[in-house]
Amino acid sequence: MIADRPAIDRPAVDLEALLRDERAEVERALERACEWLGDELPDELLQPARHAVLSRGKRLRPILCVVAYRACGGGTDPAVYDLGAAIELIHAYSLMHDDLPCMDDADLRRGQPTPHTLFGEAATARAGLALIPAASLWALRASDALGADDGVSRRIVRELNRGAGAGGMVGGQALDLLGEGQHLDSNELDRLHGMKTGALLTASLVIGGLAAGASEASIAGLESFGRGIGLAFQVTDDILDATAVAADLGKHPSDGVLDKSTYVSLYGLEEATRRARVLAEEATEALRGAGIDAPALIALASYVVERKR
Amino acid sequence: MIADRPAIDRPAVDLEALLRDERAEVERALERACEWLGDELPDELLQPARHAVLSRGKRLRPILCVVAYRACGGGTDPAVYDLGAAIELIHAYSLMHDDLPCMDDADLRRGQPTPHTLFGEAATARAGLALIPAASLWALRASDALGADDGVSRRIVRELNRGAGAGGMVGGQALDLLGEGQHLDSNELDRLHGMKTGALLTASLVIGGLAAGASEASIAGLESFGRGIGLAFQVTDDILDATAVAADLGKHPSDGVLDKSTYVSLYGLEEATRRARVLAEEATEALRGAGIDAPALIALASYVVERKR
Repeated sequence: MIADRPAIDRPAVDLEALLRDERAEVERALERACEWLGDELPDELLQPARHAVLSRGKRLRPILCVVAYRACGGGTDPAVYDLGAAIELIHAYSLMHDDLPCMDDADLRRGQPTPHTLFGEAATARAGLALIPAASLWALRASDALGADDGVSRRIVRELNRGAGAGGMVGGQALDLLGEGQHLDSNELDRLHGMKTGALLTASLVIGGLAAGASEASIAGLESFGRGIGLAFQVTDDILDATAVAADLGKHPSDGVLDKSTYVSLYGLEEATRRARVLAEEATEALRGAGIDAPALIALASYVVERKR
Repeated sequence: MIADRPAIDRPAVDLEALLRDERAEVERALERACEWLGDELPDELLQPARHAVLSRGKRLRPILCVVAYRACGGGTDPAVYDLGAAIELIHAYSLMHDDLPCMDDADLRRGQPTPHTLFGEAATARAGLALIPAASLWALRASDALGADDGVSRRIVRELNRGAGAGGMVGGQALDLLGEGQHLDSNELDRLHGMKTGALLTASLVIGGLAAGASEASIAGLESFGRGIGLAFQVTDDILDATAVAADLGKHPSDGVLDKSTYVSLYGLEEATRRARVLAEEATEALRGAGIDAPALIALASYVVERKR
């Protein structure tokens, strides 16, 4: 099955080294963010927040932010990892709340016990809520550290909240909730996942570009790229869910149980695999069309559809 | 008992007319905010959000924002009500989440059924989450409409998130949760309520001042005023909780049941009443000390300690 997974043109980037090195920097930035959180958050809430933020993860959003920043001429200032970490705080809170007993009631995530199983539901829910404004504040601090002017900082915090909010992640989660037990067509599924996953991935890229002072044309290119890999990411998730066993994923495949529409249920495995590849290819085309020469971003597009978890 | 409630110098403002007129404008602004939310939020989440946002409330935060704006030389642009409404979105979400079965499990608020009893827990929780980034986005739009420059907009969104976050409302809620069954001394109680209630009230005033282009001295004066009336508000809440019956408050007095420390349990009713008055008087002194001549703000300080609900 793995051999049938999509592949796009191999770029001249060592993807494994890129992911390893960037993840290590992102982890350090997440530690800094948690330390800062601890200045204000009582210890009983800091614990579930740390557990959620520092649990093993792909760190795709911060890595996209950092790589977009460099692709648009940003320098080597490590504060860009703090900017990426701000976005990961939103992602972390969303997982904490998704897994709560009053939501999906999951006791396992990435092979680890979920925070509420360790720290209780009320403390975990509150800690998750604390991460939302913290993300905006941490993004503003990182923007300052990167020397962004007020207009850029303002736009960064706007993109972050758009990606996180009703027109982005939370809105998509709502559509997901409403779609349970319903048959969604491909447009509806694209809209749902474009919001639920695509919006914050796209915001990550745009925020990196904004911090680097990218042109409007480059920002538009990053947006198209983000929309494409956002959908490709979800199609791949559905393929992985359909083909992997629970132990391999570190979580219980749940969408089938909840009778949700997936790209695999809609297209079948083969066509879904083809579609993920086409989406990733179109995404890299959009980058090239916007004049962004970024082998690392292209490598990440291939990672999105070739990853095994 | 009511006759013993604190009173401070009567200012030359018709408080009742002020509250009535400002509330009417705030309600219209909240309707505008909900209409805008409806552009992106699926109807199933818009319903609990509208229910929470448009339920009867004191609207103290938006009114403080508007009145501070005017006291600092802001004009008559109605967009300042939208700025105030952004802050009320945060307050509304906090009530939605407080009342959830997985939190305080309250089925009644302001005499009305809470949103989760009507729309379910998952939809209400998600709708509440949607309001948090919405508040930042709506504040940025209102800042634009008021002609605020990027630096002011940036500071407004920062104050909003500080008031809402770990160092403000959510942090205070966490301390509140942790304080159940514990005896808190006056410093601990002041810290808790300074964060839980005071931070967002103070942010409301500061945001109004910032939008009006207030001097740093005026902003500092508004901060002191906000801290004072924030504590006075909570002391008064505790007095009301201790003396009112459930039917009169429209909610069930709960802190006694949860064995929480209150200002009444700490000081007794008489001393708590005196303390509320002193806090309100010190708050108005801080305003005068900062050179802010604002009879309407002074009237609101008296309202905070004289209100009956």
